[in-house]
Amino acid sequence: MWQYVLSPRQGKKTSYWRSIRKWQKRYFVFFLTILFLLCNIFIFLKSVIFDNNLFGTVSTQFGLNITQICLAEDCSEDEVIEEVLKLNEDPRVHGIYLHLPPASLTSRVLDTLKPEKDVDGITDLNLGRLVRGDLSRALIHVLTLNPMVSADAPLKGKTVLLVGEGGPFDCALQSLIEKNGMTAVKIAWCSRSLQSQVMQADAVVLSGVGSRIVPPTWFKPDASVICCESTLDCSRWIQEKQYRPWSLRRLALQPLTPVPRDIEISRAQVPKPVNQLAEEIGLLPEELEAYGRNKAKVQLSVLDRLQTQPDGKYILVAGITPTPLGEGKSTVTIGLVQALSAHLRLNSFACLRQPSQGPTFGVKGGAAGGGYAQVIPMEEFNLHLTGDIHAITAANNLVAAAIDARMFHETTQSDKALFYRLVPTVNGVRKFSPIQISRLHRLGIKKTEPASLTPEEVSAFVRLDLDPSKITWQRVLDTNDRFLRKITVGQASTEKGQMRETGFDIAVASEIMAILALADSLEDMKNRLARIVVGTSRSGQPVTTEDLGVSGALAVLMKDAIKPTLMQTLEGTPVFVHAGPFANIAHGNSSVLADKLALKLVGQDGFVVTEAGFGADIGMEKFFNIKCRASGLRPNVVVLVATVRALKMHGGGPNVSAGSPLPKEYIDENLGLVAGGCHSNLRKQIQITHLFGVPVVVALNVFKTDTQAEIDLVCQIAKECGAFDAVPCHHWSQGGLGSVELAQAVEEAARTPSNFQFLYDTEMPITEKIRTIAQRVYGADDIELSAEAQAKVDYYDQQGYSSLPICMAKTHLSLSHMPDKKGAPTGFILPIRDVRASVGAGFIYPLVGTMSTMPGLPTRPCFYDIDLDPITEEITGLF
Amino acid sequence: MWQYVLSPRQGKKTSYWRSIRKWQKRYFVFFLTILFLLCNIFIFLKSVIFDNNLFGTVSTQFGLNITQICLAEDCSEDEVIEEVLKLNEDPRVHGIYLHLPPASLTSRVLDTLKPEKDVDGITDLNLGRLVRGDLSRALIHVLTLNPMVSADAPLKGKTVLLVGEGGPFDCALQSLIEKNGMTAVKIAWCSRSLQSQVMQADAVVLSGVGSRIVPPTWFKPDASVICCESTLDCSRWIQEKQYRPWSLRRLALQPLTPVPRDIEISRAQVPKPVNQLAEEIGLLPEELEAYGRNKAKVQLSVLDRLQTQPDGKYILVAGITPTPLGEGKSTVTIGLVQALSAHLRLNSFACLRQPSQGPTFGVKGGAAGGGYAQVIPMEEFNLHLTGDIHAITAANNLVAAAIDARMFHETTQSDKALFYRLVPTVNGVRKFSPIQISRLHRLGIKKTEPASLTPEEVSAFVRLDLDPSKITWQRVLDTNDRFLRKITVGQASTEKGQMRETGFDIAVASEIMAILALADSLEDMKNRLARIVVGTSRSGQPVTTEDLGVSGALAVLMKDAIKPTLMQTLEGTPVFVHAGPFANIAHGNSSVLADKLALKLVGQDGFVVTEAGFGADIGMEKFFNIKCRASGLRPNVVVLVATVRALKMHGGGPNVSAGSPLPKEYIDENLGLVAGGCHSNLRKQIQITHLFGVPVVVALNVFKTDTQAEIDLVCQIAKECGAFDAVPCHHWSQGGLGSVELAQAVEEAARTPSNFQFLYDTEMPITEKIRTIAQRVYGADDIELSAEAQAKVDYYDQQGYSSLPICMAKTHLSLSHMPDKKGAPTGFILPIRDVRASVGAGFIYPLVGTMSTMPGLPTRPCFYDIDLDPITEEITGLF
Repeated sequence: MWQYVLSPRQGKKTSYWRSIRKWQKRYFVFFLTILFLLCNIFIFLKSVIFDNNLFGTVSTQFGLNITQICLAEDCSEDEVIEEVLKLNEDPRVHGIYLHLPPASLTSRVLDTLKPEKDVDGITDLNLGRLVRGDLSRALIHVLTLNPMVSADAPLKGKTVLLVGEGGPFDCALQSLIEKNGMTAVKIAWCSRSLQSQVMQADAVVLSGVGSRIVPPTWFKPDASVICCESTLDCSRWIQEKQYRPWSLRRLALQPLTPVPRDIEISRAQVPKPVNQLAEEIGLLPEELEAYGRNKAKVQLSVLDRLQTQPDGKYILVAGITPTPLGEGKSTVTIGLVQALSAHLRLNSFACLRQPSQGPTFGVKGGAAGGGYAQVIPMEEFNLHLTGDIHAITAANNLVAAAIDARMFHETTQSDKALFYRLVPTVNGVRKFSPIQISRLHRLGIKKTEPASLTPEEVSAFVRLDLDPSKITWQRVLDTNDRFLRKITVGQASTEKGQMRETGFDIAVASEIMAILALADSLEDMKNRLARIVVGTSRSGQPVTTEDLGVSGALAVLMKDAIKPTLMQTLEGTPVFVHAGPFANIAHGNSSVLADKLALKLVGQDGFVVTEAGFGADIGMEKFFNIKCRASGLRPNVVVLVATVRALKMHGGGPNVSAGSPLPKEYIDENLGLVAGGCHSNLRKQIQITHLFGVPVVVALNVFKTDTQAEIDLVCQIAKECGAFDAVPCHHWSQGGLGSVELAQAVEEAARTPSNFQFLYDTEMPITEKIRTIAQRVYGADDIELSAEAQAKVDYYDQQGYSSLPICMAKTHLSLSHMPDKKGAPTGFILPIRDVRASVGAGFIYPLVGTMSTMPGLPTRPCFYDIDLDPITEEITGLF
Repeated sequence: MWQYVLSPRQGKKTSYWRSIRKWQKRYFVFFLTILFLLCNIFIFLKSVIFDNNLFGTVSTQFGLNITQICLAEDCSEDEVIEEVLKLNEDPRVHGIYLHLPPASLTSRVLDTLKPEKDVDGITDLNLGRLVRGDLSRALIHVLTLNPMVSADAPLKGKTVLLVGEGGPFDCALQSLIEKNGMTAVKIAWCSRSLQSQVMQADAVVLSGVGSRIVPPTWFKPDASVICCESTLDCSRWIQEKQYRPWSLRRLALQPLTPVPRDIEISRAQVPKPVNQLAEEIGLLPEELEAYGRNKAKVQLSVLDRLQTQPDGKYILVAGITPTPLGEGKSTVTIGLVQALSAHLRLNSFACLRQPSQGPTFGVKGGAAGGGYAQVIPMEEFNLHLTGDIHAITAANNLVAAAIDARMFHETTQSDKALFYRLVPTVNGVRKFSPIQISRLHRLGIKKTEPASLTPEEVSAFVRLDLDPSKITWQRVLDTNDRFLRKITVGQASTEKGQMRETGFDIAVASEIMAILALADSLEDMKNRLARIVVGTSRSGQPVTTEDLGVSGALAVLMKDAIKPTLMQTLEGTPVFVHAGPFANIAHGNSSVLADKLALKLVGQDGFVVTEAGFGADIGMEKFFNIKCRASGLRPNVVVLVATVRALKMHGGGPNVSAGSPLPKEYIDENLGLVAGGCHSNLRKQIQITHLFGVPVVVALNVFKTDTQAEIDLVCQIAKECGAFDAVPCHHWSQGGLGSVELAQAVEEAARTPSNFQFLYDTEMPITEKIRTIAQRVYGADDIELSAEAQAKVDYYDQQGYSSLPICMAKTHLSLSHMPDKKGAPTGFILPIRDVRASVGAGFIYPLVGTMSTMPGLPTRPCFYDIDLDPITEEITGLF
């Protein structure tokens, strides 16, 4: 005859339970026990609260951290709730044990306690799970009734006497016993017939034994006796806090022919609530900040929680040199994750750039993918999202306002007046703020006492002395407003004639966007924001946002924008949308942080698919040399997107331009043009990928006009050119199902070793780095710097910026600087018109040609068709 | 002997249940039954699904609307989940009954079903509630075991035989029986010993009877027999869908002395999760769109749901003419609701304006209240919020870009080219978009076929012919950027020399903000957005956003902004933050929709406290004449905020200005100055309130330098001047507790009848309306219009805008137009420099003096102190 404590996976013997109830009755103190996480591992055994020796052992052994909060004996329900709420929200607290008298466990208290933190399983949700017998989910009250451990004879069919204290727990126990095919008869510990009933029973289950002792002589000699107490399933809980396998629910697609408009497809699918999606992919509720029903920001603390978790496979989607119509990298990206997650059942995440809102109202074309490969709801993806671009606009323009206001105040005030205003007396004390002390340090002034500065030092401190002609910082708006490209500001009489010429860029061209994309923590972002150089002083010194005193405020404005936004594809697979820097004057890739989070969430065997802007010569080169350098991440596979249309163009087909009908070469089969394009541009882009040592899979994005012979030809030549594989994809018309072949090819390619290497060492001189890219990537013979460009290179050398990586601002319509040279041009000299620096973001960007950073509106912008039904709230005419 | 169906409040006899189980077994069809609401009333009886006659009766009688969704017999778990998800999210569906075989009721399916819509009580949460015996919350499975209904003898202490089918429901039933002091012995319907056990039992409970029949002869003659089935608590459910009494949890305050900085007070308090707050005030989960943990947008559908609910009391907080430092209307508003809700336990809501973000970084001072009367978290209130102002910026600037781009394209293209571009051929068909047909109608062209237009009609259609010198639409930014006050745009060579002078305003000065504040539905907002006049054509015709084709896109950009944002005060009482139009060129009041929602939510005996910008002569006058006219709402009480400081200034005290120390008159007791201020400005502002027939309570916002004699004097004179009451308030240092006296006075005043009337009839000529306000409110002898103003009045008359209400743009620092005339000036002529119209918002605004619509940054903006701790994410230096 044995007495067992049943724990979920093995029937461990223990005698911890004896003293608990007794203690409880003797002292009857109100308290809450709260458990803090230490080293990401958490174990809780009910007894540790009462036994200090054991507590010491357990906490050492498992890294347990327990804090006990004692409440006043007469504290109110509201006070209990307030404590619980604080603990609910504290991400360091992983479990709460409410050690309160039953009368205090009111509905309101129990409703407040988060079921995920309810270590004692007393919330209604956990109780319900237990009653229903869902042991896999009942958080703590894990009981298994395994007849094998208790006696030789199986109990099935027998009547079991359940001795307990009554209450929901016994009720749940009874339900479990009955689920195991037995009949349960309950009796209370205090019942006078206890002894006689026990003596007759073939099987006895003792619940809430506490300090009670049942004389062994009461039991029939062959009786099975089981002692039940709730305990923690430690290993599972640890597992849950570490990494949870996904249980992704796929949204079914029923593709129509012909394929409807994007917004109609998007609207026809009901997305999963974002908190459900988050749970499916192993995010904890406290790591999520919902923005409505379909979007949520994800906290960066996930990176800490999962730091020991190995990363998944890292896939980059790049493209061959596109036509002006684009070749569908985003749809390939989305189709690929739909195929991986929803069809191959492999965890996968797409990481996309947030599109600029301005162009949404200009010319048609969203950035949420298209056809049956989309992020939904597409209108939320394209408009406002979670406000990141708005935050960038606010931060960018605060810097601009600070620049002009500072120049104005410097012009109109003496050194002394400026100093007294900049370092005012507060409650009788004149003190520098921390940001001002940073500036003093940069000026080489080691003083911290304002009164001790010499007049020269005061002057150096108060005068940024910005040269109005050398201010590089522009204002931004997320609107296609061509009339703001070049403007004169300061014309009101209040500005006393301090006019100057400047301009607005589209918001995503802001350096702050590039910073958001490259930052790998809040601290890193803050440091980059403080390093931004906005212009040069008359004496040639760079002036930073920290000099302006504004960098702390920038970090405050950007504190939510740094968290990636979670959305989903049409098939219910997860997507991060985060950051969308320009692909010419910036690096054109989504954020480092989104990729890092996704790589942890998909787990070792999962896939993260991220996209680089423009062709592989630009977006991919910057992905490797700039983004991977900043993140330390190493890609496993490159997916190179090609279309028959673009290949024909590179093979010598006529011009393709937006707004004009396609020439017939692009509609009829033309194997010659296709072969020409494959042997020029496609081959060259594959070679570029190989420079970095990463296997490449060519994805042919199939259009309905493509013939089988054309498709076969592309795949054949691509493989001949060194592609690991080349496959056609039909995601646009079929969703993930149309990209299964691509997904399989990618999965296989990811198993081959990647010998990733950078193209250049950042310690090389700036000119050498530019030359390396021009020759090895673009195929140029050499580069040629204008005098202005050379002067800038010299200036950056002198200022210590020469070890920054290079971000080429070149047309994406050709491998060369000449947009109409298609294929793989050779024999050209790449002209470098100017060189600029984004010191905060951390790169030098040489300008090859003129880059427009503010789009305009056509005669009939697409807003003519956009409308809102005020009753259904449905949007029409958006793509 | 009786058989009862137990329903919660009365033991109604019925025999509906008989055929159910039988039917279920015979057909065994997979289906879901979904219940739609009709007329806001919903009743569900389990039987109605099966009995069409009864169904007809019930649905007619109670307004029940039932839809049955049949799923394929082999449908997957995912398909069931997908259906349930759609119904979860559909606000028209109020209950879901999952009529599925037990094997299909998997954990995932049950997890998906929203507990609030679970009419059968099978979700874990509802099951848990039932097991725990929380009948007040268990949604549908409401069972009461009332021994009185079943037999003469009370059952307490007896053993009850529970006959059932097993499973969680019986388990819960047993738990209930035991809670009622009985012992329950369970037996299955299929047990062979059923008859013998029934025959011995003193009390029998039959569960899941279905079509089974227990022969009456089995029961002991004196046995109590109870038949249990789950049923709906109809009346409670209807009540819940209609109006739920609040159960507001107050957050305790422990005010410190001296009062810490605002951000420290805000950060020391842990706000309730916004979804919990929402539940406490009777919002349904589907009516909420959370934005992170602390803010949520509330859907306008609440207005439909609660349309039959009477409004609460409507309280306006206005002020006497303030000093440039402000007199604390916002803190009074928040202190008042804290006192009403948290101390007097009366439902109350504060409705506040969203502050502009720009000034947050300029000079210190947030808009979230201050001290112990604040909205929390104050940094979220002051920064970004839920993006409404960002949406306004985007919408406003899209209009501006559309104006300049249109002028550019009109200049560079022929009529024909413009026409072909504006009405392009799509799939071979040239068609007008609906927005273009609206324009044709305004032009008096009744055609809908593009080809049928005459060349003159084409020209009239394609040429807005905007006069560049008469464009009134400005761009906006939410940044204090003084250098944008007057600018020249279009200086890039791409704009071909089409430069023009224009400027930026701060975003809250946009007419779109005024529209947001005055709209009373999505449709109304859309119509107002389409009516915006952006300038005048060369022939003198007004040009609207609809003429530009952009009005639909504006509605799309603003579709989320129209939903008010829910936050809370330091004491956990609800606050709506919504819209914040300028108080001079616009009407300076928060939104109509927030007030309307709040009035429904507080219920008949509750209070909604809203605030008007500037002094009562401006903000309150516009609240009555513009906002109340638009909303149809009628105020019950005005709270007029005064300070000893401002009264001393009006009584002849020296100048008060921001940045300079206060003269000693304001620090030492000076009853003469106080009396002077009371008899001039305070008396006049009380009189203005009386013009509108609303009782006024004077709230003296007490500062620490105020003496008791000064406080008493103000209250005494205020009452002599006709105030209903006058009380000192100490909310800044004490929170709601310091405003209890004010709350009591307001409550009493709200019981007196209000004889509200408008000051003028909108059909009066524009000049007469202006004169009425100037004479009766400001105390002017007359008005004098400049030639320009008179010309505008004539133009607006001619355009049919003359019946719009008047929105005076006057200094708030004096009742007159002269900021340094304090007290109650008389004997002046009010000069009207210019008159403008916000046709979309719906008011004419005469300009008295020059209004700055773009603030600047001082030499040391407060951003010098603002910083973010990258580890704790805490903000420092924000107020």
